[in-house]
Amino acid sequence: MNGNSVGIVVRNFFTSDEPLKLISQLELSPFSIAYETYGTLNEEKNNVILVFHALSGSAHAAGFYPTDPNPGWWEDMIGPGKPLDTNRYFIVCSNIIGSCYGSTGPESLNPKTQKPYALDFPVITVKDMVRAQKKLIDFLDIKKLFCVIGGSLGGMQALEWALSYPEMVESSIIIAATAKMTPQNIAFNEIGRVAILSDFLFSNGNYQLQNQKPAKGLAIARMLAHITYLSEQSMNNKFGRELKTGNYLFGLKDIDFQVQSYLHYQGDKFVERFDANSYLYITKAMDYFDVTKELLELKTKTKFLLISFTSDWLFSTRQSMEIVNLLRKNNNHVSFTEIESDQGHDSFLLNFEVQGEILSSFLEGIKKS
Amino acid sequence: MNGNSVGIVVRNFFTSDEPLKLISQLELSPFSIAYETYGTLNEEKNNVILVFHALSGSAHAAGFYPTDPNPGWWEDMIGPGKPLDTNRYFIVCSNIIGSCYGSTGPESLNPKTQKPYALDFPVITVKDMVRAQKKLIDFLDIKKLFCVIGGSLGGMQALEWALSYPEMVESSIIIAATAKMTPQNIAFNEIGRVAILSDFLFSNGNYQLQNQKPAKGLAIARMLAHITYLSEQSMNNKFGRELKTGNYLFGLKDIDFQVQSYLHYQGDKFVERFDANSYLYITKAMDYFDVTKELLELKTKTKFLLISFTSDWLFSTRQSMEIVNLLRKNNNHVSFTEIESDQGHDSFLLNFEVQGEILSSFLEGIKKS
Repeated sequence: MNGNSVGIVVRNFFTSDEPLKLISQLELSPFSIAYETYGTLNEEKNNVILVFHALSGSAHAAGFYPTDPNPGWWEDMIGPGKPLDTNRYFIVCSNIIGSCYGSTGPESLNPKTQKPYALDFPVITVKDMVRAQKKLIDFLDIKKLFCVIGGSLGGMQALEWALSYPEMVESSIIIAATAKMTPQNIAFNEIGRVAILSDFLFSNGNYQLQNQKPAKGLAIARMLAHITYLSEQSMNNKFGRELKTGNYLFGLKDIDFQVQSYLHYQGDKFVERFDANSYLYITKAMDYFDVTKELLELKTKTKFLLISFTSDWLFSTRQSMEIVNLLRKNNNHVSFTEIESDQGHDSFLLNFEVQGEILSSFLEGIKKS
Repeated sequence: MNGNSVGIVVRNFFTSDEPLKLISQLELSPFSIAYETYGTLNEEKNNVILVFHALSGSAHAAGFYPTDPNPGWWEDMIGPGKPLDTNRYFIVCSNIIGSCYGSTGPESLNPKTQKPYALDFPVITVKDMVRAQKKLIDFLDIKKLFCVIGGSLGGMQALEWALSYPEMVESSIIIAATAKMTPQNIAFNEIGRVAILSDFLFSNGNYQLQNQKPAKGLAIARMLAHITYLSEQSMNNKFGRELKTGNYLFGLKDIDFQVQSYLHYQGDKFVERFDANSYLYITKAMDYFDVTKELLELKTKTKFLLISFTSDWLFSTRQSMEIVNLLRKNNNHVSFTEIESDQGHDSFLLNFEVQGEILSSFLEGIKKS
């Protein structure tokens, strides 16, 4: 991959004193958003790209924190000379509310009780996440977004931005996403939630105060989600039926296969870095997502780019095509590319060559138009 | 569906005093098998069809128990005038070892301790299930099987029978099955097992003595399995995004969608009827299943019929085709049909019109040949 890193970055916080009115009619107040920026806002303030992360992501999309050797989650996509070129664009990546990565979420202090919200945190929707981000963009005194972009839940936010604030959004890139969560999508999320809620240490969400976590439940949720992020083909390529020790072990609890070992590793790693309550709230927000009706009525100048991946069975090409077809009903400007990839839903985090070129040339086209 | 029911049936038991030597080198002794029979064994004893059930099935494939209004699990397929015609064939359905439906399994008394085996039950394989069934067939003094047939794990047994006892098996019908469990198949099983093992009430498998069960863990395992039994399309048709109350409820633990409600119902229903330890052992046996090497070397007179369903993504058409291709390498006699169905893996339990006709005409062909 061409281009350099944006280098050392810092996490910023925006805190709003105005309450955030939620779709549920409840309010969240006060609320904060963690965000990062890369590149420079130009004088006309017309070079802003707003990047959204997926379920378990954070505002740390690019560069490095001083004490952490791991780069941001879209390091290959964002930087000088990269597809989201920080020499040209001012990139803002905003953490979602509900998350455990700096924005107000179930781990935050509930001002009413002076304890963590836990399950007193209000149920939020993708539209609420976007409303909160709008406050951040207002705070940054940005009136127009050259582009909004994200994959998976990030793609839903990119779509929701174009629906909620069509006048502000010049272009929207929606990658590996959907106009609505299908019953199968909801079913997988539900099982993850049930696993967390059933964990003996969940303590009705108040595990934080008891200095423990529903580690087993959260690990199960993540293991399951991981299957949906990979394709059958990529699992065949990566693991096949490879054995961990070379032999069948014939113990009921034994880890015979590499794929079992991998899943456990992924589950355990996730428990270290993510909050179970956040997982519950964010998956619930996803389940509520259904913008098919709004899409059917949308008539906008926003230019859309849809990207899907051939082996993605979580948010399949058919689901991207549904968005394309709904957008075309009102003759909106929409491009669509299906990228050949055997890496399943995770492709949006892995496929940089083809994806990067498509993004670059789409953004180039928007700039010229 | 044409044909009548076989009517009232009884469950029989065969108990072997000879130990069953297992693939793990351990022995199971004594062991029993629950089985049912329908129709009449002819004098030549050449009209036997051996039927195998899937993961959570039982020997009760057809007819009714005196006290239970529910018919057997393949009622539409087995009976006078039905595809497995009890006017012509003597049908034997054998419960697998490891099950909780009458055959020796983890709920059975361990003769060494006079307590239920629980996790002291030995790990078994599909080959062990078939070895046990062979003892039953010997006991019934049957030398030849006109046909062995089953779907899913039942299909694996039908395949294993043809590999273990090729001289005995005239024909083998393998429905919605696979020659080997893929890493994705194993991954889904693993998560189900982890959910059970993580349940606080699992008590290292000794829940039976404590008069409790790992109900939450077993329900999670079943909910997850259920997703893999349905197709995305059938879930769309059956549930879509239909709401339980007509409104979004905005409570974190609320059941908003019908699909959530359905999954919980399926999970709870399963907990009432199935044993968690059996679930662990049977899924483990499935994971070990890989007969690709034996298939490649098989040269047999057995006539094979493979059936897959278009929307089955658990054991897909590609997986049936793998069996077909391996069998054809040595010019074995093999037919293959892919049936159009949007009901996913469950099709083998639901699709009777087309499936029934294919079975009838295949069996007719074997009889004449």
